[in-house]
Amino acid sequence: MTAGYRIAVDAMGGDYGPRVTVSAACEALQRHPHLQILLFGQQSSLEPYLARLPDSIKQRLQPIHAETIVTMDDKPSFALRRRRDSSMFMALKAVAEGRADACVSAGNTGALMAMGRCILQTLPGIDRPAITSAIPTLNGHAYMLDLGANVDCSSEHLLQFAIMGSVMLQAVERIEHPRVGLLNIGAEEIKGNEQVRLASRLLSEEPELNYIGFVEGDGVFAGKADLIVCDGFVGNISLKSSEGLARLIGRKVRQSFTRNLYRRLLAVLARPILQELQEQLDPGRRNGASMLGLQGIVVKSHGSATQSCFSHAIDQAISEAEMNIPALISEHLERHLSSSRR
Amino acid sequence: MTAGYRIAVDAMGGDYGPRVTVSAACEALQRHPHLQILLFGQQSSLEPYLARLPDSIKQRLQPIHAETIVTMDDKPSFALRRRRDSSMFMALKAVAEGRADACVSAGNTGALMAMGRCILQTLPGIDRPAITSAIPTLNGHAYMLDLGANVDCSSEHLLQFAIMGSVMLQAVERIEHPRVGLLNIGAEEIKGNEQVRLASRLLSEEPELNYIGFVEGDGVFAGKADLIVCDGFVGNISLKSSEGLARLIGRKVRQSFTRNLYRRLLAVLARPILQELQEQLDPGRRNGASMLGLQGIVVKSHGSATQSCFSHAIDQAISEAEMNIPALISEHLERHLSSSRR
Repeated sequence: MTAGYRIAVDAMGGDYGPRVTVSAACEALQRHPHLQILLFGQQSSLEPYLARLPDSIKQRLQPIHAETIVTMDDKPSFALRRRRDSSMFMALKAVAEGRADACVSAGNTGALMAMGRCILQTLPGIDRPAITSAIPTLNGHAYMLDLGANVDCSSEHLLQFAIMGSVMLQAVERIEHPRVGLLNIGAEEIKGNEQVRLASRLLSEEPELNYIGFVEGDGVFAGKADLIVCDGFVGNISLKSSEGLARLIGRKVRQSFTRNLYRRLLAVLARPILQELQEQLDPGRRNGASMLGLQGIVVKSHGSATQSCFSHAIDQAISEAEMNIPALISEHLERHLSSSRR
Repeated sequence: MTAGYRIAVDAMGGDYGPRVTVSAACEALQRHPHLQILLFGQQSSLEPYLARLPDSIKQRLQPIHAETIVTMDDKPSFALRRRRDSSMFMALKAVAEGRADACVSAGNTGALMAMGRCILQTLPGIDRPAITSAIPTLNGHAYMLDLGANVDCSSEHLLQFAIMGSVMLQAVERIEHPRVGLLNIGAEEIKGNEQVRLASRLLSEEPELNYIGFVEGDGVFAGKADLIVCDGFVGNISLKSSEGLARLIGRKVRQSFTRNLYRRLLAVLARPILQELQEQLDPGRRNGASMLGLQGIVVKSHGSATQSCFSHAIDQAISEAEMNIPALISEHLERHLSSSRR
């Protein structure tokens, strides 16, 4: 399956840094016997975690010292200018130079995006890369794109997102004709702002897209579309609002089930059900977010990712490498561009 | 409490029309012994529901025939031009002419807003009315404003929303200094688009606002602010996404608790807990959404509102009438305008 893939891991990103990233890398290496990982980070921070590893893992885990780190508060422009010796920059560089097949980071999203654009470059025909991730729905899951990389998007950008996402779903999820919806405040054609109304026209004219029209916020989780296209501001707020509500519900459930002895007893009996629900609905489980539109594979893990989440992001990077998503997007874009030129 | 208030009800709005609105009106009349309701709707549609009512209710429920109705698909501009004999238009007109203290409708939001602006006019200093509603949070509830009336807002509009919402929370929720947050994709100052960054400066310069900065999507439900200000596009999508996720979770819970006999038994034992949770988290419970910024009180009930939801919207209209919200907003705006002129 994963014959010889090499993944560049930014070990310093995320809320927990090497404590999570190193153990997640080991978990991934155990799961994929042919995988190799390049681990970028400050030597002194990595060493305590590396010392304990068995030799079988050490052979396939190559630590590479990076002088600095990108913090969560660094402005993207600052990080790009001043953090060229950071673990994040160096991990992306490894992909650009062909030393790795993909990069995984849980660090500062804006900086990762800015560096990705600079180091890996966007694909021909793509103005801006975008971020996508899977979210749970009634009948499985759907992808939302963009989730925060681009705060202001034109309708042409939304079309590019639709094409990239559609290609990715065909490859990774093996859906032949992914249903593409545009996120809007109403399902009727007259609803929404100029940007989405114009984008709707562009998407409906694109022959290779299975465009199904506008989808409202509640339609996202009802599974009305396989791919929900939106600008990054709206996508980010939609996703985080839902995460926030999910967390609220989780808390209320715990409060309800601990109010008295009888309820605590019930909670013990219902524990497998409650755990199963949490796993199904935990937004962090399908954790990797893919940056699409770059000439290289970059997977962004959640800042608060746990070991299993981060190792899941590594898995995702491997499967995108297997499918060679950037090449597939590129192919599709060439067809799109040549047909729109005609 | 509710001495002599008269509420104009658009009986034809919403998914269920008079079936829900008439019984909700009765429920409200039973709860408030001095309340009077003007019930606007097509006589033939209302009659079957009115016939069965006890005389004590009939005395305070005055049906007023309206020739037409505004449908959910009517464009606001069309409704405004061609539906001046509709139940919605006539109910708003009753408020404008002082025959009623507030209007309640579950009909087409865009049409209600357009008619509200035309018939009631905006308050001096307000460019656009906005819609706000309570949403559940960890420690109670918060209000979000705007929820879909304005798809494109300037930063000055967001400031106006902040002022209106803040005044309403002081009056209706009796919070002395409501914490006002701006919805954004990050809590740091550098995050977001031009519109929210500029709005943030405006809000922080307004002396009578307790502005606490940016709030992210997940912060909304964590109760980080009492009032979340955003443009209507983003607010609508944030709210509907969360409603969608809540519904998804509800379905998954039901699926989980019915998978086998043991679990069905557990579900019976846990029923009071599950019901209590649903009530706490049902987005439709605190159902009335207030249209702020008009020279009159308009409460919009959810299109799919049940009897208890719609009667709750009537309660809300009564309490806004008691506090005379439009006058309070107007007073505050005058102070704001005179201080910004200085």
